[in-house]
This record gives sequence, structure tokens and C-alpha cells, in this order.
Amino acid sequence: MKFNIAVLPGDGIGPEITQQSVKVLKAVADRFDHEFNFEEAVVGAAAIDLLGDPLPENTLKLCKKSDAVLFGAIGDPKYDNDPSAKVRPEQGLLKLRKELGLFANIRPVRAYESLIHKSPLKPENIEGADMVIFRELTGGIYFGEKSTAEDGRSASDLCTYSVEEIERIAHLAFKAAEERRKKLTLIDKANVLETSRLWRKTVTEIGKEYPGVKVEYLFVDNAAMQMILNPKQFDVILTENMFGDIISDEASVIGGSIGLLESASIGTENALFEPIHGSYPQATGQGIANPIASVLSAAMMLDHLGLKKEAETVRMAVELSIKLNVCTIDINKDNHYSTERVGDFLESVI
Amino acid sequence: MKFNIAVLPGDGIGPEITQQSVKVLKAVADRFDHEFNFEEAVVGAAAIDLLGDPLPENTLKLCKKSDAVLFGAIGDPKYDNDPSAKVRPEQGLLKLRKELGLFANIRPVRAYESLIHKSPLKPENIEGADMVIFRELTGGIYFGEKSTAEDGRSASDLCTYSVEEIERIAHLAFKAAEERRKKLTLIDKANVLETSRLWRKTVTEIGKEYPGVKVEYLFVDNAAMQMILNPKQFDVILTENMFGDIISDEASVIGGSIGLLESASIGTENALFEPIHGSYPQATGQGIANPIASVLSAAMMLDHLGLKKEAETVRMAVELSIKLNVCTIDINKDNHYSTERVGDFLESVI
Ligand SMILES: CC(C)[C@H](C(=O)O)[C@@H](O)C(=O)O
Ligand SMILES: CC(C)[C@H](C(=O)O)[C@@H](O)C(=O)O
Repeated sequence: MKFNIAVLPGDGIGPEITQQSVKVLKAVADRFDHEFNFEEAVVGAAAIDLLGDPLPENTLKLCKKSDAVLFGAIGDPKYDNDPSAKVRPEQGLLKLRKELGLFANIRPVRAYESLIHKSPLKPENIEGADMVIFRELTGGIYFGEKSTAEDGRSASDLCTYSVEEIERIAHLAFKAAEERRKKLTLIDKANVLETSRLWRKTVTEIGKEYPGVKVEYLFVDNAAMQMILNPKQFDVILTENMFGDIISDEASVIGGSIGLLESASIGTENALFEPIHGSYPQATGQGIANPIASVLSAAMMLDHLGLKKEAETVRMAVELSIKLNVCTIDINKDNHYSTERVGDFLESVI
Repeated sequence: MKFNIAVLPGDGIGPEITQQSVKVLKAVADRFDHEFNFEEAVVGAAAIDLLGDPLPENTLKLCKKSDAVLFGAIGDPKYDNDPSAKVRPEQGLLKLRKELGLFANIRPVRAYESLIHKSPLKPENIEGADMVIFRELTGGIYFGEKSTAEDGRSASDLCTYSVEEIERIAHLAFKAAEERRKKLTLIDKANVLETSRLWRKTVTEIGKEYPGVKVEYLFVDNAAMQMILNPKQFDVILTENMFGDIISDEASVIGGSIGLLESASIGTENALFEPIHGSYPQATGQGIANPIASVLSAAMMLDHLGLKKEAETVRMAVELSIKLNVCTIDINKDNHYSTERVGDFLESVI
């Protein structure tokens, strides 16, 4: 089969990890006789430096007409520490999510048997942990009206949600729960936030359509604690944009490295696949970044394109690399492989 | 010396733990020859049940004229699962914080030597962890305008901050850092939120007045991960209301039990002391709730009243109870003591 894949390497370690995924995808195309057309475009700080715009028109066009977007990472400390910067790399990613209508960000988290000892958590606490986080991605405080008073003495961010925004991702999450262990946990702050109460009400309603799925509710502060105390209690987690950002980064400690966690951002028309880690500027160009999160994101992309067997093959390659410890320094301290050599290994076993 | 102390036991396990603190405080008064006048008042679900108002006028009056407020806990599941309830227990606590101007919530977190093995985290990760979280408590999305559309199809919460709101708590946090290990970490989401950028700008400015303190910035998603990966990196944490709520509950896993964590809420005129745990309804009346968080909150109260030696005595009593394992079931599984017996022990060694 034939697919057009937009490749947006972005900033920091984005390019070096994305390169490994492209290599792996090419190996998949070879082995399974597909045609993947890769087209690259700039985004984020890289695009600001080049064109003054974190999401140039051509990049957006390319993404819209592609079958899937493979995304690297975004962010540059020179913007983080300048609160008055008018243009910032993250705007590129946020605008892309919005323009492509990527309302559901899906983040699987599991403890790999052979990596359990790497986690800061005790093995008995995480052995067998296996969850998927459904994070709403185009609403909430990320996209509500922002303002700063003229005199610069105050600022505000508005968090809004509509029933429709909650419903569409809730259905995806409930469907996933039906295919899994049939439990859905809604994370909110319904004892304080009006939007959270709308989430709770809407999700309770929708839950009636999925009688086989058990629904639980957890306040976000308690959830942040439960994620560490007893991560095995979670199957499918459903939550709004900001809480999903925080909780999923936190959950990465279960896997032993944030360099392992993939994600899919799904809309009605488009889909984008990106590691959940950031641009990790300190590591840029040193060949120490873990490409696995990006490669597993590519596997989610294959799934999305209907290429299940191909996706499985990529996942098996990753599991083999972890088992044989053909891994970067975040996982394999004593005898680590470079980003590129991990990519080479994955390519070679496909 | 003579002090008037308002006691607000609140909901769930609130009354039974607060009772232990009062007992301990009475022992302190006896031993050090002080006069503490305790006056009780209702708040939260208990006050709704009784008077239809989560913060009755008399309760507020009592708090305002007291030298300090000892607070139990608030919350009842019958309101949590009713998103359309007009009156809710939490409103009582939020209004109290606002009316008393308690802008700074101070939450110390440390790993007790003898409890390190209780934590879900590996000992080597937490040994020596010792931080204080300064959470802004009367601003942000907790108190901004809330609304639900007339047709109930959408809702919103506004997050606002002014420079003044940030400055007053920032000064407290910087001063604390000067007395400690001289490091302050601001947790925000400045790559997305306008309010976070105001925090970053304001804190950077104020930092110049404290040249001895090293300032670091961390995005909240990364912070949620760092808290588990390497909690020892933190000394003083400064953050806004909602992020502080999430991060401090998460940080409780370091201490081995949320039943150990105390907090002080400080304003210009008033001060309130409460455990960070909630009302834990499932445990109510069973005598299994850990009173230590409340007792340590009482110790913070003594500090605040200028009674340093007295506060130290209470802390030593708590450390002794932990060392001798005179502890409730959350800490001492095999041979646990009841809430009351832990209180009796603490009283007896003062
Ligand atoms: C880079 C940033 C805007 C982004 C977010 O907060 O959504 C990132 O943290 C993520 O989780 O994808
Ligand atoms: C009960 C609730 C409103 C409260 C909060 O979110 O502030 C609690 O979680 C806390 O942290 O004191």
C-alpha cells in the first residue's frame, strides 16, 4: 500500500530521533512491500529561526494532505526564559493540533519486564502496570482566551469545555476500555472547577452507553498520588488537556524512562504521532537521545494506517532491543549504544 | 502565654484526628504553662447538614478573632458525585481561605529515616529528601470567575493572577530558601499559560533581591516527573494554586504516607493549620486515621505563635512515635495502634 507521511523533526533531539523512525519505517516498507513517501517540513524553534513562524503555511498544508504526521519534539530554552517573547516554538505545536483537529492524545504506559529495575519505584509496585491515558488535546486552558493587562500587572487564562468536546474523546476512551480491562478512570477537579463538573456529568451520561465498563472518578491531586502508590489500578484514564499533560509525564516514571513513551494524536481527518518527551536541548547532537519513544510512535502510526502486522513487527523489534540491552544511556548506563546504533539495530531486525 | 484557638474539625476523619491534636496541645499548655482557649465550630458538609451553609457566619467570625485556626478536613462523596449540587463542602474551605486572606500554603515534605522502606519509591531515591512547597492559596483558577452556559452545554473557569499576588508569596518563599539550602524552584507552564509567564517574570525580578538564592524553573509536567525521579533536587518549591495542589499531593509519596503531611496557611492577619490529606470518608469512625499530619500542623501553629520550643517538643514526640512504631495502620501494618492510642502516646510523652 501507499502512504504519504509528513515528517516534522522539530527542535533539539527531534531530528536525530525522528531519523531513526524513518529508517525503521523504510525497513517496514521494504519488508512488507509498501510505499511510504516521506516529506519533511520545519516546525517550532527551527521554523522561527528559518521563517519567523513556528508553523509555516507550507508545513500545515503538507500535514493536512498527508496520511499521517510523524512529529519529533518542540521547544528551545531561549524562549522559555524570555516571558515576553511574542513568538514561541510551542505555538507551532498547539496550532498544529488545533488546525488538524487532533482532539485525542493517546498515551500508553506500561512497565517492561526487563526494565522494571530501572524505575525509581519499587518493582512490586509497578510489575504488570499497563494503562492508556486519553488526554483531551484541543480544548481547555491551553486554547482559551489569554490576556495580559495593558500595564502588565495581571494576566489570565480561560479554561473552557463544551459537552461536544468531552463526548468525542469520551467515546474513544470508553471504546478502548471495552477492548481492555473494562475500567475507565476520569481524572478531574470537580470539587473546585466548573469545567470538571461538566466533564463528570457528561462522562457519567456517556458511561450508560457502555454498561460493561466500570467508571471511577478521581480528583487530580489524589490521582497524582495514586499514580505512584498503586499504578496497577489504572486501565483507561480519561482527562482534560492540562491534567493529562501533568499526569502522563508523571506516569512515565513507571516505564523507567520517558524516552520510551509514545503517543498518538487523533482527529477526524488527521493523525499525528509523537514521543511524549520534549526536545531535551541539553542532549542535542550528542547521540544519547533514546529513539524508542519515536519508533513506538511510528508503530502507533502503522496501526492507525491499518497495518497491524507491521506495527507488531516494530514493537517486537523494540522489545528485542530492550531485552538485549541495545539501548541508549538512559536505560543502559554501563554499555550504552548511540541513538543511531539503536536505530540501526531496530532497522536490521525488521 | 494565652491564645485563642479556633477548632474546625470538619468532615470525615477530621473530627477524630483533630481531637488528638487538641489533646497534644493541652499537654503542651500544661507542661509549658500556657493557656490555650479552644473553641469549636462547624464547617464543610457537617455545616451544610446542620445549617445549610458550608461556612456559617459564626464560624467565620470565630476564625477571624482567633489567634490561629486548627482545621481538620473537608469533603463528602455525596457531593462529589452530584455535579449539579449548588452548595458543596469545599466552598466552605475555599471561602475561609479567601476571607482570612491565607495566601500562602506551606507544605514541608521529608523522608523520615525509619519510614523510608514504606515509600513506594526506592530508598536510594528518597533518602535525605527535604523540601518545602509554597503553594499560592487564594488566587488562580480556584477563585476566578466560573460559569456554565444557560443550556448547560459548556462551562468555563478563569485563571487570573496579579503581580501583587505573586510577589507576596514569592518573598515568603525566597526568605525560606535563604534559611535553608538556598535554592528555589518555580513550577509553572510558561510555555503555554499567560499567567505562568507573569509568574516567571515576577519571580525572576524578585530573585534579584535575593542574590544568595539560586532560582530554577521547571514546567509542571516535567516537575511531576522530577518529583519522583529525583526529589532530592528540591529545596523550596514555589507555585500557583492548582499546580501546588497536584504537586504537593504527589510529593506525599516520598514521606511514605499522606497521613504524615502537615501544612500552614498564612495571611497577613490570620493563620490556619491543616493536614494536607482529605476527609477520607471510607475510614471515618474506624479509628484507623493517622493523626500525625494534624499533630504536626499543630506544631506549625505553635511555631507561628512564637512557641518554638513547644513546637520542637511536639515534633520530637512524633518522631518518637514513628521510631517506636506507635503508628496507625497506614504505617504500621502488622501491629497498628488506633487513632486515639497514637494521640494518647503523643500526649503522654510531652
Ligand atoms: C510542548 C508542550 C506545549 C506540550 C504540551 O504541554 O502539550 C508537551 O508538554 C506535550 O505534552 O506534548
Ligand atoms: C478540598 C480541596 C478544595 C482542597 C484544595 O484543592 O485546595 C484540598 O485538596 C487541599 O489541597 O487542601
